[in-house]
Amino acid sequence: MKGFRFSAVEAAIKKPGRLDLALIFSDYPAQVAAVYTTNKVQAAPVLISRERSKNGRCRALLVNSGNANACTGEQGMADALECGRRTAEALGLSDEELLIASTGVIGQPLPMERFKKGIQPLVDGLDHGTLDDVARAIMTTDTFEKIERRSGEAGGKPYSIRGIAKGAGMIHPNMATMLSFLVTDAEVDGAFLKSAFTEAVDGSFNAITVDNDTSTNDTAVIFANGAAQNPSIKAGTPEGAAFAALLHDVLLSLAKLIVKDGEGATKFVEIRVKGAANQADAKKAALAVANSMLVKTAFFGQDANWGRIIAAIGYSGADVQQDRVEIRFDDVVMATGGVFAGGDAEAAGTRVLQQKEFRVTIDLKLGAGEAVVFTSDLSYDYVRINADYRT
Amino acid sequence: MKGFRFSAVEAAIKKPGRLDLALIFSDYPAQVAAVYTTNKVQAAPVLISRERSKNGRCRALLVNSGNANACTGEQGMADALECGRRTAEALGLSDEELLIASTGVIGQPLPMERFKKGIQPLVDGLDHGTLDDVARAIMTTDTFEKIERRSGEAGGKPYSIRGIAKGAGMIHPNMATMLSFLVTDAEVDGAFLKSAFTEAVDGSFNAITVDNDTSTNDTAVIFANGAAQNPSIKAGTPEGAAFAALLHDVLLSLAKLIVKDGEGATKFVEIRVKGAANQADAKKAALAVANSMLVKTAFFGQDANWGRIIAAIGYSGADVQQDRVEIRFDDVVMATGGVFAGGDAEAAGTRVLQQKEFRVTIDLKLGAGEAVVFTSDLSYDYVRINADYRT
Repeated sequence: MKGFRFSAVEAAIKKPGRLDLALIFSDYPAQVAAVYTTNKVQAAPVLISRERSKNGRCRALLVNSGNANACTGEQGMADALECGRRTAEALGLSDEELLIASTGVIGQPLPMERFKKGIQPLVDGLDHGTLDDVARAIMTTDTFEKIERRSGEAGGKPYSIRGIAKGAGMIHPNMATMLSFLVTDAEVDGAFLKSAFTEAVDGSFNAITVDNDTSTNDTAVIFANGAAQNPSIKAGTPEGAAFAALLHDVLLSLAKLIVKDGEGATKFVEIRVKGAANQADAKKAALAVANSMLVKTAFFGQDANWGRIIAAIGYSGADVQQDRVEIRFDDVVMATGGVFAGGDAEAAGTRVLQQKEFRVTIDLKLGAGEAVVFTSDLSYDYVRINADYRT
Repeated sequence: MKGFRFSAVEAAIKKPGRLDLALIFSDYPAQVAAVYTTNKVQAAPVLISRERSKNGRCRALLVNSGNANACTGEQGMADALECGRRTAEALGLSDEELLIASTGVIGQPLPMERFKKGIQPLVDGLDHGTLDDVARAIMTTDTFEKIERRSGEAGGKPYSIRGIAKGAGMIHPNMATMLSFLVTDAEVDGAFLKSAFTEAVDGSFNAITVDNDTSTNDTAVIFANGAAQNPSIKAGTPEGAAFAALLHDVLLSLAKLIVKDGEGATKFVEIRVKGAANQADAKKAALAVANSMLVKTAFFGQDANWGRIIAAIGYSGADVQQDRVEIRFDDVVMATGGVFAGGDAEAAGTRVLQQKEFRVTIDLKLGAGEAVVFTSDLSYDYVRINADYRT
């Protein structure tokens, strides 16, 4: 990857011995596109970065884990601005060229002394850090770092896209305590980058759910610095389509990793609704199933309980005619015409649920609406992790 | 209680040794009011009873646990009608005078031979059964039977109201796998009974949530048979107001018992939102908090995590200005102006959460909207019970 440098340090914002402060730096001015949480309660770094990324050009991103700097009022805003200013200064940038992100505990002031002490070592580390270090530094209850790489070509010039993410709890459509940062050395038209990124986020991060809770800090950002020296990738061209497809692929892969690493998750489940009266109904029905605590505990228990699934569809708000509904676990028809399919469906369905990954397909047989949502099960470990969560 | 008789038997619909078939019978024609699930997938008994209760006059209610007769198609409808017909015949009633309710596993055909065998003993038992027997017979994962009694007076004649309920999982506003049956010997005007009952259900069963899942079978019914021989209780009179208040009190008490007996519940929590822009926003915010898996696991862990609460308010869809929000645990101010209240709030808040019952008050400071919702925590036992639920 040309023209990007990375760094991560231990600033003791989390418990000692863990990376918790990181930096992404572009050697050149970069196009930037970003998507933020829709939660009405937003952390200081989100409020700051949302404004700065509107410019469409930035050079760097500063991120910490261990403290979300959310619900910290004016002090939190002043703290975030000061950390940003010191970092920008050390990098020789203007404040506006630096984005900021935080994840961790809500409502605690940033430990400013430790944070500030970390900045110079962080900047000094840019010559030998990697994106993997950054991926590790943003982890909270994640059990593994999430990183994806893809390569493409435009006008005979090869380029690559790399992305990292953190997830775990609070994952839900419309973003969550989810951070994802992408870098590409491709030269991309600014307006196209924005639309392609927003669309890719919709089809990936906004299609996953672990626990229905969206967060105050969700941030997804892509930097495109043009170091590959390709002719600018634009909308409505084959290169544009290829770039958008790669971008979607990176984000979807990251989104799936987030679900697989959902707190306490033992199952990875694709919920596919088709035949809905319309698109919105399909999404409603898929989300109701994906978020149902009864459905998720049944997945954990490997219990082929399609009744809980049809009940969730029924209260989803989507148009449903119960005598049309068909439910499959992978290829096993569990219910058809709204009733149990009979035969050996229960035994066959149970075998599907014994896998670590499977698909639930719900056909409402009313129209052409389709939606896909990825979810995990609800296990003892989810309760354990969240009943006593300390970063 | 005058003019009502009760019966319950073991018909082996659940595992042997447990009451699972019950009957409520009025010696006189009774006014009846009922509220059913809003789930679009509805069990056969719900479809049948909804029609029959429209008449406003019934004599009896047949209920079984262990099998919901939901998603059982035409066969399920035929089975429910046949069980109803046989019971009505044995009681000397027309089909239309009998209501039917079921709770239990979805998607399995009723075990008709065992069900039918139970009907004659059930009818024979009417001379020595009690409402408590019925309360026991409708339990599924409930750990105790739920029964409430109140007394009133109208025109010098004493009357009483008795109610039973079952709940446990799938409890959520707009009803749930929740059955509740009330009987009163008061003479009550039919239209008034209907409006008072609907209103009381709104303020009680529709204000509780255990796991956000509504069911295919929810049914709440009241029979008023006039055996107390009081002058008919009507809307807009002191007797009407007193009756409505008693009714509300019975239903709210039953609703609270349901939450206390929520699957795996160790905490009973009142979520009170005030200062919302309007009533609908208050309810949205209260429900988002009450249903948040992160908030509920924090309650279980006795973790004074107001950050998860403010995050839930933020994504609830309600109008929120984060720098106005105040959050209290009982009388302890945890956050004010959207930030941590400081001082010893964390220790004091933790002490509140160590109680079995407490109240969370959220003041949005935007308007006059208020709502109250009752909820439970999310524990290991919730997962255990639902990961392997067999009636």
